Amino acid sequence: MNFDQYLNGLAQKDKRLIARAISIIETESKGHEFLLDKIFHLTGKSYRIGITGPPGAGKSTITNQLAKHLTSFGKMVGIIAVDPTSPFTGGALLGDRVRMSELTNNQNVFIRSMASRGSLGGLNEKASDIADVLDAAGFDFIIFETVGVGQSELEIVQAADTTIVIVVPESGDSIQAMKAGLMEIADVFVMNKSDRPGAEQAVAALKTMLTFRWHDENTWIPEVIKSVGTENRGIKEILDAVFRHQQYLEIKNLLNAKRHDRHIQRIRNIVETKIMSDLWSKIVEEKGESELNPSSPVPPYNLAEKLINDYKKHIRRSEN
Amino acid sequence: MNFDQYLNGLAQKDKRLIARAISIIETESKGHEFLLDKIFHLTGKSYRIGITGPPGAGKSTITNQLAKHLTSFGKMVGIIAVDPTSPFTGGALLGDRVRMSELTNNQNVFIRSMASRGSLGGLNEKASDIADVLDAAGFDFIIFETVGVGQSELEIVQAADTTIVIVVPESGDSIQAMKAGLMEIADVFVMNKSDRPGAEQAVAALKTMLTFRWHDENTWIPEVIKSVGTENRGIKEILDAVFRHQQYLEIKNLLNAKRHDRHIQRIRNIVETKIMSDLWSKIVEEKGESELNPSSPVPPYNLAEKLINDYKKHIRRSEN
Repeated sequence: MNFDQYLNGLAQKDKRLIARAISIIETESKGHEFLLDKIFHLTGKSYRIGITGPPGAGKSTITNQLAKHLTSFGKMVGIIAVDPTSPFTGGALLGDRVRMSELTNNQNVFIRSMASRGSLGGLNEKASDIADVLDAAGFDFIIFETVGVGQSELEIVQAADTTIVIVVPESGDSIQAMKAGLMEIADVFVMNKSDRPGAEQAVAALKTMLTFRWHDENTWIPEVIKSVGTENRGIKEILDAVFRHQQYLEIKNLLNAKRHDRHIQRIRNIVETKIMSDLWSKIVEEKGESELNPSSPVPPYNLAEKLINDYKKHIRRSEN
Repeated sequence: MNFDQYLNGLAQKDKRLIARAISIIETESKGHEFLLDKIFHLTGKSYRIGITGPPGAGKSTITNQLAKHLTSFGKMVGIIAVDPTSPFTGGALLGDRVRMSELTNNQNVFIRSMASRGSLGGLNEKASDIADVLDAAGFDFIIFETVGVGQSELEIVQAADTTIVIVVPESGDSIQAMKAGLMEIADVFVMNKSDRPGAEQAVAALKTMLTFRWHDENTWIPEVIKSVGTENRGIKEILDAVFRHQQYLEIKNLLNAKRHDRHIQRIRNIVETKIMSDLWSKIVEEKGESELNPSSPVPPYNLAEKLINDYKKHIRRSEN
C-alpha cells in the first residue's frame, strides 16, 4: 500500500481515493493507524456539525438542503450518515439514504454512510476518524447525521462543534426529545415542518423549556429556528444560527477547549484499546479463560487485581 | 465500616441495610469493591428481567403488576429503575416513580431508582452490581426498568436474562421500536393498552415483522403478548412467556453461556478501568497534559504507543 498515493489523493480531493482511505479506516484494515497518523497534521480546519432528532423529523432533508446551501457559496461539505443498524445482526433498516442521491453528483459534496453495528460506544471515534480524512482533504464543513433514536445522539455531541436537534410540531416530539436527553445536547433547535398546525405553540413551548434551564450571561441559550425542509424554507436561518454558535464558541475560547478535550479523549481511547488488547492476549487468552468462570471461587475485583499483577510481572520479565 | 454487619443484613433481608449497601456501591464509596467481592459467592441465583420501550408505553405500570403478581406466590422481587437523567446536568426529569409507591410497603419488594447521569456506557455494570446485592440477599427476581428512549435499552439486554419490550398500538410505536433496535433485543413483546383501536392490527404487524427475521428451529422467536396494565390484564400471560423463555435458555444451555459472557465482560471492565487509571495517573497526569495538545507534532497513534511504552518502563523500574 502506497500511503503517498492516498495523501496525494486527499490533496487533490480525489473522491475515489478519499472513499478508499475511509474504507481502510472504517474496516480497520492494515495501515489504518499509520494513515490516521499521517493525515493528523492536516486536520483541525473543518467545522463539524451534528444533526440528530427523532425518526421522521426530516433530518436527511435538512442535511441535504444545508449541504446544497453551503456549496452554493463555494464551500465543500462532507456528510457522514450513521444508520441505525442492529448491533446484533448488522442489518440496515432504513433506505432513506437514496433521497440524498441528488447530492452525489455534486463535486463539492462527499457522502458516506456508516453502519453503527456492533458499537455501543466507539461510534463517535469512528465517525471522527472518517471526518479527519475529509478534514485533511480540505472539506470546510462536516455534517454528522444520525437517524433513529438510539444511543448515537449523545455520542455525536462529542464529535461535533455545533449540534442541531430537529423536531416536528406534532406528537409531543419536543417532550420526547427532552426525555431522551436531546434538550441538553442541542445548540440549535430546528422546528421542521413548521407549516403544520401547532408549530407556533410547539416553538413557544420549546423556548419556555429552554429558559427554565439554569443559565447566566455567559451561557449559550439554544436558538429555535422554524423550517420547512422540503420547501427549502429556513435553511439559511439554520446556518446563521450555526455561525452565531460558532462565533460564540470562538469568542469564549470554547472551540479550542472542546477540541482539546476531544483529542485527550481520543488518545485515552487508543491507549485503552491497545493496552487492554495486550493484557488480555498475554494474560488471559494464553491460559484460557477458565479463571473467568462465574462459579470460580475468586471474586471479581480480586481476580482483576490478580490479572493486572500477572501483566506487570509479564512486563518486568520481558525485554525492553 | 463493618462488612459482617452488611452481610448479616443481606442474609436477614434487612431493607435498611440493603439500601445502605447499594448506596455504597452506587456512589463507589470506600469499600465498595470489597463489598462486591464479599457477596460474590452468594450471587447467581436470581432471575433478571429487563423491561424497556418508548416513553408512555406503560413500563412502570407493568413492572408494578408483574412485581405484585410474583409476590402473590411468595417470590421476592427487586426493581431497579433507571431514570433518563441528563448526562450533562444530572437532573432527573420524570417523576413517575411515585406511581410505584403502593409497592413500597410490600415486604417482598425492594425498589431502587438509579440515575443514569454521566454514564454513556457503564450503566449496565452499575445496575448489575446493584442487582448482585439483591441477588445475594435472596431476591428471586430482579427487574431492570429503563424509562426513556436513550442509550440504556441496548445496555440493559446485557444485564438481563429475559428482555421485555413494551409498545402501544398507536403512533407507529412498533416501527419506532424497530428503528431504535428494540426489535432485536426483545425476548417478549408486550402490546400494552391493547383495548385501544388498532391493537389487533399492530399485534399482527409485529408478528409478521418477527417472522421475517432469519430463524431456524433453534431460534427463540419473541412472543407477542397483549395487556392492559392499568386493569391488570395480561400480566400472568407476560410472566408465562418469560418463564417459557427462561426454560428455552436453560434447555439450550444459553443461560449459563449468557452469564459466563457477562462475567468475562465484567472482569474486562474492571481490569480496563483499573489499568487505565494507573497508567493515566503515572504517565500523563504527573507530567501534565501538554503532550496531549491537538496541535502537538506527535500524531495520536504514535503518542499512544509512546505513553504505553512509558508506562511499561515505569513498571520495570518499580518494585514488585
